[in-house]
Amino acid sequence: MSLKVDYSSVRQALERIDRVVHHTPVMTSKTLNNITGYEIFLKCENFQRGGAFKFRGAYNTICQLTKEEKEKGVIAFSSGNHAQAVALASKLLGVHAVNCMPSDSPSIKKEAAKGYGGESIFYDRFRENREEIASRFSEEKGMSLIPPYDDPRVIAGAGTAALELLQEVESLDTIVVPIGGGGLISGTSIAAHGFNSKTRIFGVEPESANDTLISLRKRNRISIDPSNTIADGLRATTPGTLTFPIIQEHVEDIVTVTDDEIMRAIYFAVTRLKIIMEPSAAVTLAALLANRFPIQKKRIGVIVSGGNIDPLLLAEVCQLNSEF
Amino acid sequence: MSLKVDYSSVRQALERIDRVVHHTPVMTSKTLNNITGYEIFLKCENFQRGGAFKFRGAYNTICQLTKEEKEKGVIAFSSGNHAQAVALASKLLGVHAVNCMPSDSPSIKKEAAKGYGGESIFYDRFRENREEIASRFSEEKGMSLIPPYDDPRVIAGAGTAALELLQEVESLDTIVVPIGGGGLISGTSIAAHGFNSKTRIFGVEPESANDTLISLRKRNRISIDPSNTIADGLRATTPGTLTFPIIQEHVEDIVTVTDDEIMRAIYFAVTRLKIIMEPSAAVTLAALLANRFPIQKKRIGVIVSGGNIDPLLLAEVCQLNSEF
Repeated sequence: MSLKVDYSSVRQALERIDRVVHHTPVMTSKTLNNITGYEIFLKCENFQRGGAFKFRGAYNTICQLTKEEKEKGVIAFSSGNHAQAVALASKLLGVHAVNCMPSDSPSIKKEAAKGYGGESIFYDRFRENREEIASRFSEEKGMSLIPPYDDPRVIAGAGTAALELLQEVESLDTIVVPIGGGGLISGTSIAAHGFNSKTRIFGVEPESANDTLISLRKRNRISIDPSNTIADGLRATTPGTLTFPIIQEHVEDIVTVTDDEIMRAIYFAVTRLKIIMEPSAAVTLAALLANRFPIQKKRIGVIVSGGNIDPLLLAEVCQLNSEF
Repeated sequence: MSLKVDYSSVRQALERIDRVVHHTPVMTSKTLNNITGYEIFLKCENFQRGGAFKFRGAYNTICQLTKEEKEKGVIAFSSGNHAQAVALASKLLGVHAVNCMPSDSPSIKKEAAKGYGGESIFYDRFRENREEIASRFSEEKGMSLIPPYDDPRVIAGAGTAALELLQEVESLDTIVVPIGGGGLISGTSIAAHGFNSKTRIFGVEPESANDTLISLRKRNRISIDPSNTIADGLRATTPGTLTFPIIQEHVEDIVTVTDDEIMRAIYFAVTRLKIIMEPSAAVTLAALLANRFPIQKKRIGVIVSGGNIDPLLLAEVCQLNSEF
């Protein structure tokens, strides 16, 4: 397996997953454009199979395993969406999947992973090291570890969402992407700069999970304390070893948003766009609504990364904001 | 103005509104298909301008007014979405609009109508007759009354959603549509049977607002007591004089759903489809999930009529269902 990810890896990934992936719609909103002053194109991966872009990387990885590897099964560790994606991709490919997920993941993600047929193991993300647990499991049973972001096949798969977006919408100047471990923004950057080297790429992180922003500033991968941000998919405490150099090379800057801004963005998506964004996806909308990017009057692509929000959190969002 | 609505009225309406209307996406869901056993195509008018299909009829009507009529302005009476649509269409056409709406309309609808620039008058729908209020207003000021459904231009406009759906999705056997005053299902029926005379049309009403079902059975327009169903757009107490004969001619049958079933359908749309349906739109999904149609293994088109749900009701939906 080559560790290099380039434009052709993303294009090959799209060919590989083309028949099983949803070609998700690109939405526009006059209201959103009026408020922000941009022309915004929302690539709706919340409508992707499994409810998030993660299915792209999971399928692209598992379908490339050898017959022997497929027979031994796969193991994943993630905050939820990746586990769910691995369970679904595995089911479609006839592969046994074990998911190793934090015990405080939203119940909707736990149930969904179960619904797709995966076996689940829970751990305490404040006390246990998930990589160690999962590695032990894979060594004992010979299962293939499917990393959530730090893998060239996963990164290439994640980049296919941007590739579809660029093929559908002409002349995008800028793409904005949420950052957790950095898989989505890495794949997006490679796809975008392969398509047009002048595309500007911005990342968005929660204020309390800004490991990539700090790492970029210090030019070194920095670890931060675990965050409790509502953007549960973006709680990674350090950028990936593969993703960080890609981010350094391609990403112009990173902006941050607060949990309160994320909640207002989810509310905006519900009441004005009529779509569900999970908190980890809504960070980009939050940053756009807060006018946080140093760009003017541009055509901006946004990767809406997922829609698996906990219904109880959504209830809270609806109640809080209706008083504004 | 001819009172007749036929297939060419719908096609002409689509030509007339083509440049201003959103050509809303058609969504599919493997999960929904697996659960129901149908192949379902959701025509997402919740993404329409103003958040509902109503914009189609309002624009089609107001754009056909004479210059003199446009100068005197328009008045509408509706449970909210139509008022909002009239306000938006009027704004785009430079026409002054007054909306006459029930005082207990969801706050999101009141605010949205205000947001589009319309002037609002409120009335008590249990004590006052909205038609009389609005007629008086139009006589005194010479404003044109834009009826919510009982008007050939409004019906033809409403039918353009189905026409777009039929042009995009091949071989639909059946279309299911919510029924309030009957404008949407009338326009849909005419479009569908103009396109293919064999298309089966089913309507859905809330159990407590089943005026059209009773009227169909008694072969006569029957008035029922005002309903408090959460499907606030479907609270009409009697079918329209124009719409009822169309429904009698074209609609195969009507099924009903309870408010509890509607809430579960909204929950399903949020958690599985990642889209917002207002209660009046979710009646069709509720009927599909409850397996209420006497049809098997078919390609079914669904007009998702709107997405303007009160956030507090959505909060309730999320809380209730998360305990199931």
